Amino acid sequence: MSDRPGGIFAASITPVDEDGRVDVPRLLGHLRWLLQRGCHGVAMFGTTGEATSFPVAERRRVLEAVVEAGIDPQRLMVGVGCTNRDDTLELARHARGLGVTDLLMLPPFFYKNVPDEGLHRAFAEVLDGLDDGARLVLYHIPQVSGVPVTFPVIERLRRRDPVRVAGIKDSSGDLDHTLRLIDTFPGLAVFSGSDRHLLDNLRRGGAGVITAGNNLVADWSRRVWDAHRAGRAAEAEHWMAKVATVRAILESRPVIPALKAVLAAVRRDPAFERVRPPLVELPASAREELLAELDAAGFTYEPADFTAVAD
Amino acid sequence: MSDRPGGIFAASITPVDEDGRVDVPRLLGHLRWLLQRGCHGVAMFGTTGEATSFPVAERRRVLEAVVEAGIDPQRLMVGVGCTNRDDTLELARHARGLGVTDLLMLPPFFYKNVPDEGLHRAFAEVLDGLDDGARLVLYHIPQVSGVPVTFPVIERLRRRDPVRVAGIKDSSGDLDHTLRLIDTFPGLAVFSGSDRHLLDNLRRGGAGVITAGNNLVADWSRRVWDAHRAGRAAEAEHWMAKVATVRAILESRPVIPALKAVLAAVRRDPAFERVRPPLVELPASAREELLAELDAAGFTYEPADFTAVAD
Repeated sequence: MSDRPGGIFAASITPVDEDGRVDVPRLLGHLRWLLQRGCHGVAMFGTTGEATSFPVAERRRVLEAVVEAGIDPQRLMVGVGCTNRDDTLELARHARGLGVTDLLMLPPFFYKNVPDEGLHRAFAEVLDGLDDGARLVLYHIPQVSGVPVTFPVIERLRRRDPVRVAGIKDSSGDLDHTLRLIDTFPGLAVFSGSDRHLLDNLRRGGAGVITAGNNLVADWSRRVWDAHRAGRAAEAEHWMAKVATVRAILESRPVIPALKAVLAAVRRDPAFERVRPPLVELPASAREELLAELDAAGFTYEPADFTAVAD
Repeated sequence: MSDRPGGIFAASITPVDEDGRVDVPRLLGHLRWLLQRGCHGVAMFGTTGEATSFPVAERRRVLEAVVEAGIDPQRLMVGVGCTNRDDTLELARHARGLGVTDLLMLPPFFYKNVPDEGLHRAFAEVLDGLDDGARLVLYHIPQVSGVPVTFPVIERLRRRDPVRVAGIKDSSGDLDHTLRLIDTFPGLAVFSGSDRHLLDNLRRGGAGVITAGNNLVADWSRRVWDAHRAGRAAEAEHWMAKVATVRAILESRPVIPALKAVLAAVRRDPAFERVRPPLVELPASAREELLAELDAAGFTYEPADFTAVAD
């Protein structure tokens, strides 16, 4: 385990069965594929993973099954942020007990326009309940959560606990905001939540990405990472352009249903398509249009790609 | 039990102890006082009740204690809406098992800009899991939840289940919206979430109010109700003006900490003041200013008022 989290992470989708429960076998297949395709790690139960659509007990059960099936818990980042301290702590301690280090934490997201003092207290009371080895990745996604993780709160948390307040996922989609985070908080692992910002993040000294797009293009993102590390700028830019194209295609749709529709199609497995309310599956016509656009962008997986890839 | 919910309801605050758990003895005292002061019913675990700051198991435990202590479950409306179906159904069925009829349901509130189809599915799958005697009160509070309960969704739900989709709490603060709801959905119990709109709601044929302000002024609101029912318009307006004044005073502050500060002061019981993160208690100076304003508005309870009032 390195001293701070970093790398190419997919924010994994969560397959669901007909009863709306997590489809663990399909999830396992997808997680293994993501790790084989070049992801340094996978974030489970983030926004793309429909985390809030599942109760705490189910999230625990699924994580147990994933770790028991042999997925390295050190390659997982697990979403734990709920609207209340007890649920957040239960998920966080449970993940820690299974060997997970990195915990992605949304602020409590029901009340809006809360004071920094209250937001700080919410994070601090979770930190107070966690062991020394845990690493918290703050989750800034104001357009969904409605609750920004502000600079003063980050600063106060970092002063309080510079080791365990280890990172932030900036899913605002605002590159300037991400770059300011990197510049303002040296030592904090700043992840971009948008695939578009991967190379900009790395060049500024960020920690990498945790993205929806990596459910499809983790191998391309990994090539950006590797080329950047090796100083091959043109190669990094080549793959970056391809990643950005796919992201743009996804962003013009509801991203989670779009990802699931694509995975269902390329895997020839319609079950991947299901989402939980309040999300809705893509209509068939929209799915065909999406697939045609991705095909034109060079995204051409065959079902065999999902079984033949070796570790 | 009448055929549709209605009346003067307080959206009760939830007292908490030093560990952040619900302070059941103080909650019981407050609920009894609210019912004695003229509330037809009390809504537990709404926004004002900091519902989302407590885990499901604690919400169950507290409701059990309240009903076991002798509070009539038919005078309770219980908040059940969580971000996922299973938690919502667990709370709803549990409340039903304790004899509660009226269930206040937020839409799943993490994802924003969700399609009406998804919102409909989220409500429908909860209805599908409930018994015939349950009554759902939809909870429209878009400025907090971020997820409006739209007219098309209400219409579809009413067509699907005109009996069990019994009401809506409109906490948008937009009187025109409330009046349009009343006009558009005859038979639906339309509650206002703002104390300001009590008399307008009643005159248009609405079901009443479920409000934060009634934690303080339930007796005045009840006088508005009784005078309106008796056709004493001037008397209704007299008390309505007093209710509206207190609401205006509260609204210029963070309402939940303000309510708790006032209750702590008039009860001479500082423990009432505590809130859960991400909320923060009112600073002492703000509390004094608030109390002075309320005093000037004629809000002059003594501690004895909390024990001496008979049923």
